[in-house]
Amino acid sequence: MDPTRRNELIKVYRDGLLNDTVSFWTRHGVDREHGGFLTSLNRDGTVIDTDKGVWQQGRCTWLFAELHNNVEPREEWLQLAIHGATFLDQHCFDPSDGRMWFQVTQEGQPIRKRRYAFSECFAAIAYGELALATGETHYRERAIQTFERFVDHNLSSEEAASKFTGTRRTRGMGFPMITIATAQELRQSIGLEDANDWIDRSIATIREFHLKPDIECVMETVAIDGQILDHFDGRTLNPGHAIEGAWFLLWEGHLRKDASLIQTGCQMLDWMWHRGWDRKHGGILYFVDVHGLPVQEYWHDMKFWWPQNETILATLLAHLLTGDDKYADWHRQAHQWAHSHFPDALHGEWFGYLHRDGSLSSELKGNLWKGPFHLPRMQYMAWRWLEKDFA
Amino acid sequence: MDPTRRNELIKVYRDGLLNDTVSFWTRHGVDREHGGFLTSLNRDGTVIDTDKGVWQQGRCTWLFAELHNNVEPREEWLQLAIHGATFLDQHCFDPSDGRMWFQVTQEGQPIRKRRYAFSECFAAIAYGELALATGETHYRERAIQTFERFVDHNLSSEEAASKFTGTRRTRGMGFPMITIATAQELRQSIGLEDANDWIDRSIATIREFHLKPDIECVMETVAIDGQILDHFDGRTLNPGHAIEGAWFLLWEGHLRKDASLIQTGCQMLDWMWHRGWDRKHGGILYFVDVHGLPVQEYWHDMKFWWPQNETILATLLAHLLTGDDKYADWHRQAHQWAHSHFPDALHGEWFGYLHRDGSLSSELKGNLWKGPFHLPRMQYMAWRWLEKDFA
Repeated sequence: MDPTRRNELIKVYRDGLLNDTVSFWTRHGVDREHGGFLTSLNRDGTVIDTDKGVWQQGRCTWLFAELHNNVEPREEWLQLAIHGATFLDQHCFDPSDGRMWFQVTQEGQPIRKRRYAFSECFAAIAYGELALATGETHYRERAIQTFERFVDHNLSSEEAASKFTGTRRTRGMGFPMITIATAQELRQSIGLEDANDWIDRSIATIREFHLKPDIECVMETVAIDGQILDHFDGRTLNPGHAIEGAWFLLWEGHLRKDASLIQTGCQMLDWMWHRGWDRKHGGILYFVDVHGLPVQEYWHDMKFWWPQNETILATLLAHLLTGDDKYADWHRQAHQWAHSHFPDALHGEWFGYLHRDGSLSSELKGNLWKGPFHLPRMQYMAWRWLEKDFA
Repeated sequence: MDPTRRNELIKVYRDGLLNDTVSFWTRHGVDREHGGFLTSLNRDGTVIDTDKGVWQQGRCTWLFAELHNNVEPREEWLQLAIHGATFLDQHCFDPSDGRMWFQVTQEGQPIRKRRYAFSECFAAIAYGELALATGETHYRERAIQTFERFVDHNLSSEEAASKFTGTRRTRGMGFPMITIATAQELRQSIGLEDANDWIDRSIATIREFHLKPDIECVMETVAIDGQILDHFDGRTLNPGHAIEGAWFLLWEGHLRKDASLIQTGCQMLDWMWHRGWDRKHGGILYFVDVHGLPVQEYWHDMKFWWPQNETILATLLAHLLTGDDKYADWHRQAHQWAHSHFPDALHGEWFGYLHRDGSLSSELKGNLWKGPFHLPRMQYMAWRWLEKDFA
């Protein structure tokens, strides 16, 4: 990559991370009174819902600990991570079954649990970074415990596996994908012993059941045996999600110097860029149908922030790994479209929800799903790749 | 109403019902092989998902029996209603607890049950009309039984009442509203004994907990004691739904000659027209926030077909009952906007899902939620009001 372009990009990602994203959430998202983080914020950072998403408690905690461990050991960041972990410890576990809640009140009273268990994986990476930051065994134990609960629940609970009855058993990409990312994080933070096994198993699952070379597609949801289900749910593709999975594999391929993993990651990216990039308006569409039929989800053609974040990362990493100009071009398009539509010049951070044509659908800066995760992770990873890993 | 306008409208509604809507579904939606109805149809009527929604099995059955009982006793319509009821009888009940499924395969194997019980109320009105059409006690008994299960489940099941834990118990408008409409139907079809009691109780519930004169608003979801919950779910209004409730009350007021009910219905319509009508692009918005804050649901500003159908009915009925020109004007706007954006000139019926600006979001003609219900009910009710009840 041309050094001028590289330096420009480093500046956009680094300054975006430190001066905009992190600063927005540090100013507006920390609940100094009740602990934990408030992520349901209006455009200017005003709290518009005091409920706390447990995913976001884990993700915020992870982010601050990650920044402390990798960017610089700022005491503020460490204290914010401890602040988050304390709330997780005190309020986010259901003592009756050890599972984590999905949503709690500002004070930490339980509101909702979900049939799946993703709160656990975000808590795991948060505890893992804190173990690394502090050396405390408590955090290390919690990291291992929440990771085990995450995989156990997803593997053993019939309920977690599918919202359907036994008539149509399905498997989703979410579990193996998040297992890869979580195990990658825990390998790096606490040296999780079986991390490589989990990553291998998850990659094998994705390759066996979700990749369809004959139609050049990554299927989000398939039958338990990998067959394509010719129903709305089975045909619905989530290109941004598959592209996120692509860079998890590319990164693993880089760390292991495994050309075959890099090839698979590029394949996933190629297929889903072609299916998900909106040639009319730009940006990655939320859902598309594998056969081009109408999708059932109402927001199928909207532009959410996170698929754009993940596409920026995947295209950048593919280019850095292969040198292929095609990926540099895609990265330029994805980076350019996202940066010209999502950032809020007035109050900072990014909007989350645009219409297909790029116009604003909602002024929300956060809710139970949008918090400081995809955007700052993109800014941090892209910066470190450009400045360190692929310098 | 000016007789020319009245005759124009009668023609639009009657011809729309008989020559377009009913004909579309009779041609494309009847599963001659496995029984029941297929409602997941593409623009041209092609089946794109063979799964069957149980709501739609009940609604289709109701529609054909209703047409047979009220429009003309066509044998085809009676046979289609019996065809639907047979599928309901054979495949839509879970023998383990007597509750109805939400979704079954084309052959009738169960796929999904929901925590709430709305399949039951649509089955009840279907069985009721068939009891009236055939005089068979089986249908009458089924109508009473499914209605009782509908109210019992919604009143007694903690799970049905709320997706939340006991920390924040909520109540929604859906249950009392649908109870009114279901009891109105069953009173007329099978002379359901306690229909008036259920209607009175439901209206009292809506008045006590959901109507907020101080802020001129119908709240969709409130705390169990009626307090406004200052969270996303509590602030989110569903104007089209509240307006649907408004005409249920207006109609009851008409049948009982109860001025107070008509006043309440008009009030609900007035409040929610002002909050839900999109002054920028026209049409009723899907969700709005009671304080004008961002809504969490992604499709908040889309235009769905059914809120427009219900608004056409409510404004028309309010005008016919009160003579108020304001309602004639609102009816003209709602009728005009809907009829210039939703009908598919090429393949018939209405599209279901438009963007805020009226552009097409999805070409779907039906799915598990959209079938022949809101549109033909609007066409039938508006036609009969103009030609018979308020001639």
